[in-house]
Amino acid sequence: MPDYGRGTSAGATVAGLAGADVDDALLRLSGRVLRTPVIRSEQLDAACGARLWLKAENLQRGGSFKVRGALLAVERLAAAAARGVIAQSTGNHAIAVALAARAHALPTVIVLPCDAPQAKVRRIREAGAQVTFAGTTLADRIAAVAELRELHGYDVVDPYDDPQVVAGQGTATAELLSQAAAQGVRLDTVVVPIGGGSALAGACLAAARHGVEVVGAEPASVPAFTAALQAGEPVTVPARHTIADGLRPDRIGDLPFSLAQLDTARVLTVEEEAIAEALRSALWQARVLIEPAAATALAGALEYAREAGRGTDIGVLLSGGNVEPSLVARLLAQAGGPGAPAG
Amino acid sequence: MPDYGRGTSAGATVAGLAGADVDDALLRLSGRVLRTPVIRSEQLDAACGARLWLKAENLQRGGSFKVRGALLAVERLAAAAARGVIAQSTGNHAIAVALAARAHALPTVIVLPCDAPQAKVRRIREAGAQVTFAGTTLADRIAAVAELRELHGYDVVDPYDDPQVVAGQGTATAELLSQAAAQGVRLDTVVVPIGGGSALAGACLAAARHGVEVVGAEPASVPAFTAALQAGEPVTVPARHTIADGLRPDRIGDLPFSLAQLDTARVLTVEEEAIAEALRSALWQARVLIEPAAATALAGALEYAREAGRGTDIGVLLSGGNVEPSLVARLLAQAGGPGAPAG
Repeated sequence: MPDYGRGTSAGATVAGLAGADVDDALLRLSGRVLRTPVIRSEQLDAACGARLWLKAENLQRGGSFKVRGALLAVERLAAAAARGVIAQSTGNHAIAVALAARAHALPTVIVLPCDAPQAKVRRIREAGAQVTFAGTTLADRIAAVAELRELHGYDVVDPYDDPQVVAGQGTATAELLSQAAAQGVRLDTVVVPIGGGSALAGACLAAARHGVEVVGAEPASVPAFTAALQAGEPVTVPARHTIADGLRPDRIGDLPFSLAQLDTARVLTVEEEAIAEALRSALWQARVLIEPAAATALAGALEYAREAGRGTDIGVLLSGGNVEPSLVARLLAQAGGPGAPAG
Repeated sequence: MPDYGRGTSAGATVAGLAGADVDDALLRLSGRVLRTPVIRSEQLDAACGARLWLKAENLQRGGSFKVRGALLAVERLAAAAARGVIAQSTGNHAIAVALAARAHALPTVIVLPCDAPQAKVRRIREAGAQVTFAGTTLADRIAAVAELRELHGYDVVDPYDDPQVVAGQGTATAELLSQAAAQGVRLDTVVVPIGGGSALAGACLAAARHGVEVVGAEPASVPAFTAALQAGEPVTVPARHTIADGLRPDRIGDLPFSLAQLDTARVLTVEEEAIAEALRSALWQARVLIEPAAATALAGALEYAREAGRGTDIGVLLSGGNVEPSLVARLLAQAGGPGAPAG
């Protein structure tokens, strides 16, 4: 791994990363990613009793925050004369790597689970990458990556266990904090979704040094971080189904875990129905389309807000918006309650 | 009408309004409305061959840009010791007036068409206003307003024929121009939806003096501005159905017409299916929920962009996001083509 300016300033270094690495990543990404807006919704605020600050990374280039880490990681590989890149992902990291690699004219092979959403597969192919499908679990994809690496001699861009990726993902939270601060607000908490752990670890890097509490939200079906905390190390959990395809990794990355286990204040596990309801709430009450991974964070934030009570300022990482139209149509048709289609 | 600083600077005064009135309105609204984000979509740009700059007033307080004009108009009435306010509207102006009147603790009566979307009726009642239903045409509502005015002695906040409202609505376009300029871009064109004409007239005030072309888009079912241009004055057109409930006024306001007839470069009439398709495109490709009135502007912009060709920078006023969930569910179910639900 490259020299990453370890411990240059601003707090403790864990696993070779410190808060200052997020500042460095912000500078490197300036003008290359969108400074996505922070959305407020009076209706959501009224429903949960807190003020929510929604970082709209569903509006990011490539449709998710993952482009942040991927750009940094691929840039380093390109500078080191890589011949091509390989990535495995449930979707968004793959789109991000494909876009970043295209910018450097590097050939790209992407390994996806067989049940990856068509919307994501289409975007990866549009970016010019070759797609290979491998099983449904992280282990399936890692085995495929090892074979392809051998075959092509390309470098791997890991979605979680890469300091470039973690620091890059942390810039979404760093921007959120500074966008709220520009409106005179110091966030009490940020809630982020947990898949492989890069968003959570990045948020810890960006937020903990400012005394902002970091809360993670993961699907109750795939509680990989909860299980890792109990075991004291990353463990593989059963690969059960969740509509949050972006949060299907059944094991937290080692690097994210080492960072996040120290600075995560709380982990929330979110049921499938709450994920679906949060996706609908984002649509009807905040008027944005988010993918179920982002809805998992929103569902967690809504639950947390109801506990935390009025007057709390809660940031939420709406991590992405790459969702299958057919899934959205199905979730809207299923709706009950106040967000339900009427008439 | 109040003294409105006529012709104080910046170009011609028409109907008592000049571009400087928009600058004044911007100052008065500062901190009271959201400076909504301008959204870019690589996918929409690729589809139409131009660069679209989407002013996301669907994320505005009250769910539409109408809060801008309503705040200014109600503020003036409150300062003049009004006892209460009455407004007629197809929905968004009513929500905006109700919110503005609540801020001044003024009693409010709202006259809506019988077929107003439930989502809008709900938001008006949440803001504490009394709602009365009257027919489906503008004439029906104006008659009801006259009766209620007699009964209550309240002042009327007209949705179109009020210089405060027109100048206020113009601030959305003014912000869009300056947000694009902050990214180094001078827009070639702005496309706005045409209902009663306040958005169009406001856009003319805000944009024409900067040499930015203003294009209006109205439903082919209710071509009130096209008919007015042909007649040389506002005329009433048949009140045919359109899904763009916000654009149902069957006659352009006199004040908006006098401003817009001079400075509107082009009027596009948009078919119902194109409105529906643009609503879906906003959802799947720009990841925001907009109402059909806003989709009418987007549909117009997409058509115009295909003519104008690559390299053009086109601003689009996404005027609001108050749309009935049942309508969205129906439009998604009807979808054909590339945005269609797959699998």
